[in-house]
Amino acid sequence: MAQQTQQSKPGVGEAGITTRAQDYGQWYLDVIKRAQLAEHSVVRGCMVIRPHGYAIWEKLQRELDDRFKATGHQNAYFPMFIPLSLMAKEEAHAAGFAKECAVVTHYRLKSVGGKVVPDPDSQLDEPLIVRPTSETIIWETFKGWIQSYRDLPVLINQWCNIVRWEMRTRLFLRTAEFLWQEGHTAHATAAEAVEETERMLGVYADVAENVLAVPVIRGHKTPGERFAGALDTFCIEGMMQDGRALQMGTSHYLGQNFAKSADVQFLNAEGKLDYVYASSWGVSTRLIGALIMAHSDDIGLVLPPKLAPIHVAIVPIYKSDEEKVRVMSEARQTMAELKAQGLSVKLDEREGFSPGDKFYEWERKGVPLRIEIGPKDLEKGSLCLVRRFVKDVPGEADGVRRKRAKSFLPRAEAIASVKPCLESMQKELLERARAFRDSRTRVIDTLAEFEKFFQSEGGGFAWVHWAGEAVHEDEMAKRFETSIRCIPLAEDIPAAARGAGQCILTGKPSAQRVVMAKAY
Amino acid sequence: MAQQTQQSKPGVGEAGITTRAQDYGQWYLDVIKRAQLAEHSVVRGCMVIRPHGYAIWEKLQRELDDRFKATGHQNAYFPMFIPLSLMAKEEAHAAGFAKECAVVTHYRLKSVGGKVVPDPDSQLDEPLIVRPTSETIIWETFKGWIQSYRDLPVLINQWCNIVRWEMRTRLFLRTAEFLWQEGHTAHATAAEAVEETERMLGVYADVAENVLAVPVIRGHKTPGERFAGALDTFCIEGMMQDGRALQMGTSHYLGQNFAKSADVQFLNAEGKLDYVYASSWGVSTRLIGALIMAHSDDIGLVLPPKLAPIHVAIVPIYKSDEEKVRVMSEARQTMAELKAQGLSVKLDEREGFSPGDKFYEWERKGVPLRIEIGPKDLEKGSLCLVRRFVKDVPGEADGVRRKRAKSFLPRAEAIASVKPCLESMQKELLERARAFRDSRTRVIDTLAEFEKFFQSEGGGFAWVHWAGEAVHEDEMAKRFETSIRCIPLAEDIPAAARGAGQCILTGKPSAQRVVMAKAY
Repeated sequence: MAQQTQQSKPGVGEAGITTRAQDYGQWYLDVIKRAQLAEHSVVRGCMVIRPHGYAIWEKLQRELDDRFKATGHQNAYFPMFIPLSLMAKEEAHAAGFAKECAVVTHYRLKSVGGKVVPDPDSQLDEPLIVRPTSETIIWETFKGWIQSYRDLPVLINQWCNIVRWEMRTRLFLRTAEFLWQEGHTAHATAAEAVEETERMLGVYADVAENVLAVPVIRGHKTPGERFAGALDTFCIEGMMQDGRALQMGTSHYLGQNFAKSADVQFLNAEGKLDYVYASSWGVSTRLIGALIMAHSDDIGLVLPPKLAPIHVAIVPIYKSDEEKVRVMSEARQTMAELKAQGLSVKLDEREGFSPGDKFYEWERKGVPLRIEIGPKDLEKGSLCLVRRFVKDVPGEADGVRRKRAKSFLPRAEAIASVKPCLESMQKELLERARAFRDSRTRVIDTLAEFEKFFQSEGGGFAWVHWAGEAVHEDEMAKRFETSIRCIPLAEDIPAAARGAGQCILTGKPSAQRVVMAKAY
Repeated sequence: MAQQTQQSKPGVGEAGITTRAQDYGQWYLDVIKRAQLAEHSVVRGCMVIRPHGYAIWEKLQRELDDRFKATGHQNAYFPMFIPLSLMAKEEAHAAGFAKECAVVTHYRLKSVGGKVVPDPDSQLDEPLIVRPTSETIIWETFKGWIQSYRDLPVLINQWCNIVRWEMRTRLFLRTAEFLWQEGHTAHATAAEAVEETERMLGVYADVAENVLAVPVIRGHKTPGERFAGALDTFCIEGMMQDGRALQMGTSHYLGQNFAKSADVQFLNAEGKLDYVYASSWGVSTRLIGALIMAHSDDIGLVLPPKLAPIHVAIVPIYKSDEEKVRVMSEARQTMAELKAQGLSVKLDEREGFSPGDKFYEWERKGVPLRIEIGPKDLEKGSLCLVRRFVKDVPGEADGVRRKRAKSFLPRAEAIASVKPCLESMQKELLERARAFRDSRTRVIDTLAEFEKFFQSEGGGFAWVHWAGEAVHEDEMAKRFETSIRCIPLAEDIPAAARGAGQCILTGKPSAQRVVMAKAY
C-alpha cells in the first residue's frame, strides 16, 4: 500500500508531497499543488482557484446557502465599490480597514508615448474602495428599505469577492482577494439582533462539524480582536494538525453603530423613532484551507465525503483488448448503478496512464473511495473497494489499525456498501479530528506548565484562566506566540475546564477559562 | 380586473407604473422599482440587485450552469485584478477596453489633517485593472496548465463580477459593475475551437428561448462590432416590446491571438509546437433586463415560470376570526400539496394588508399564478386560480381574448392544473414574443421603405441586403439610428428573406440579408 510506504518515509514522498513531519507549511502547499486546488497568480497576493478547488467551494456554498435560506435569509448583491466618504463614516470601522484597502482612482487608460498609463484626465473626484466588507454600502442601502418596524427584520446575504491588502499571504488562508458570503441583518431590538448573531454562529458550527468534519469551539473574541465597528464578535475556532488554531467564521453583533453612521431610523411599535440594530457574519474560502489542514495526510488531500466533488473513482485494469472490453463493460455498469444512488462517480478511462498513476492521482485529489476492476474481479464476481483513509483514531490500540484499506466484496454487497461507507468516513473524520484535538488540549494553571506545553510538547489548545488587559495579551503573544482564540460559550467548555479561578498571568480572579493557542 | 382597468389607462396606472405607451423607458424603470428587482446605488453607475431580482438571477444561473457542466465545462476562479502590462499585451484587446477600465493605484488609506485619503506611500509600482473581461489573466494561467495536446481541451467557466466604466447606464442593461459568466476554452485545432464557439452560442439560444421565453436570431457580428481581440463574434439578438434589438449573449472565436500574446504553445499529436486555439463566451445580468422588456406589461413584471422564484402566491380572504381559522387551514393544506409537487409557493399571511394590496403586490412581482381562498370557496369546495397574464397572441381574433384570467375549479382539479398551467404559460410567453417579433419584422429592399419602417411605422427588425463597409454602417446609424444586429446563420433566416440580392445602400451584390434594427 502506498499509504504505508509513504507515511513511513521522511522528506518528500512518492506522491511528490513533503511530509508533515518534515515541514508542515510546505506540506500544505504541496497538497494544494498536487491536488490541483489552487495556485498563486501573477497578481500579488491573489490566487487562482482551480476547478477541483472550486468544485469543493461550490459544494460548501450549497450547504451554507441552503441553511441560510432555511433560516429566512435572502441573497442580494451590492456594489463592490465603496466611496471613500462612505467608508469613513463609521470611525472605528474605517480605522480597522484603512491599512488594507485597494483604492480605485482612475477610470480610463491612455497611451502616452507608446506606454499605456491611467489617463490623468480620468481621475475620480472621489476615490473608490474595493470592498473589504460591505457594512457601509449595505447600511446606506438599508436606509431606503426600512421605515417602520413592519419592514423588519431584513435578513440579507451576499456571495461575493472581497479585497484586503494582506502583506503576508497563504493560499486559501489569507489572500488579497478571496471569496466569501456576508450576512447583513437589521432588527427592531437589540435582543433580536443578538439572537440572530448567535443563530448564525450556530449555523457555522453545524457546517464546520457536520460538513467539514472539523470540531469547533464557539466563543467571543476579546475586545481587541473584535470586528472593527462591532460591539461583540463571536467566532468558531478549529484545530489544525500542527496544533494551531484557525478562526473559521465570525458573527458580529453591531448594535446601532452602522444604523447611526448611515442614519437608519425606524418607527417602532410604540410609534417612536429608534435606530435599527444589526448583525453581520461571514465565512470564506479560508474554510477550504481548514479542511485541508485538518484532514489531509502525506499522500495528499483527504475530503469529507459531503464536500467531495467525486465520491467514487473507478479505475479499470486490463492488459489485452479482450480484457478491456469485459472490464469496461463492468465498469460502466458499476458507474450507472452508483450514479442511480445519487453518487458522483468518475470512470477513469484515460489511455496512456497506468492504473498506479491513476490510483495516486485520485488519492492526491482526496476522492474518498476508489473501485478497482480487473479480470480477476470479474471471474470472482467481486469488486475491490479502496478507502482513501483507514480508521485510525489516536488513542486506540495499534491492533485496531487495519493493515490494508482494501476490501474485496461480492459485487452486489460492494455496491450496496458504498453509501454507508461514505457516511461512516464522514463520521470517522470528525471523530479523528476530535480525538486529535483532545490529545492536544490541556487544562493549564501555571505559566511554567503553559511554557512547557507550547515550547516542548508541541502545543495545542490551552484552557487557562484569564483576567488580563490588552497589554497582557500582547505580553503572552510576545513570550509564547499565543493569543486568546476565544472566550468560549458555557456549553462549549469541557467539564474539566469549568469553574472560576485565577488568571494565569496576573493572578487576578477569573470567572471562566479562555482558550489560548498559536494561530493562523 | 385590475388588468383591464389599467391597460386602458394612459399615464401612470394604479400599479404606480408608467404605461408603455406613455414612456417606454420610464415604464421599464417603474417595473423594476415596483417589483423590487434592483435600484441605483450611491456609487456612480453601479446597481443594487434586490432579493427578488437576485432570486431570478440564481434560477437563471442554475439553468446555465447545468448546461455548461453537461457540455463538459468546469468552474474556476481567477483574480479580478489584471496588471496593466498584462492587459496591454494583446493590442486590439487593450485598445478595445482602455476607455472603460477602473484602475487601482493605491493599497492603503491615511488620515491627513483629519481627512482620509489614499496613502501616497502606498502607490502601486504597477496599476491594476479591475477585470472588464478575463482573457488576459486566464491565458496567463493557462500557460502553466497546457504543455501537450493531451492537456487539451481545457473547458473553463467563471461566475464573477465585471467592471466596464460606462458613461450612460441603465439598470440591468448597462451598468459599471455587473455579474456574468465567462467561458474560456483552449483547443488543439481551429476547427475544435470554432465548434465550441458555435456549441455555446447554441446553449445561449436554447436558454433564451426555452428558459427566458425570448426568441432570438443567431448570427455573426460585423468586423467593426467584434469583441476586441476576436477573429469572429457570434451573438444572439432578441426583440424588446419597443421593437428595439437587445444583444443577449456573445460567443467569440479567438483564434491564436491570446495564446500568442501569453505565449501558450503545446506539443501537438505530430510532436510539433503550435499555439493553442481559443474561444470565450458570456452572458450577464443584462438577461434580466431582456426578460423584463420582452414580457412585462403595464401592471408590472411578467416572469416565465421557469425563472419565477415563486410559482404560486396564495392569498387568504376572511373577515371574522372563525373564517380566518377555516381559510388558513385550507390555505396551508393547499400550500403543502403544491410544495409536494416541487413548486415554490408563498402563503401571504401578512396582517394589515388587504387582499387587494396583496394581489397587486404579487402581480407587480410577476408571480405566475395566484390562488385566492375565501369562505365561499370553502363552501363550494373550489379554488380560485388567477393567471398573471391571459393568452393574448397578437393576430388572433379579439374573441379569443378571455375577459377574465380567473378560473374557479373544483379543489382537486385546481391543484392538478397548476403545473400544466405553468408549463402552458411558459410556452405562451415564447409564442407571444415570437408573434410580436414577427409583427415587427419586415423584409425590406429599398431605403425609402426602410426609412418609413423606422420613422413612421414603429420599426423593428429589418431584413436587408448589405455589402457596405464600416463607413456605410456609420452612415445608416447616423440617418436611421440603426445598426447591423447580426449576419444571421443560414438556419435562422426565414424563408421570405433567403437568397442573394443587392445592398440596400450601395447597390453592390450581397450573398445574404442581415438584420438591421435600433438597439440597446
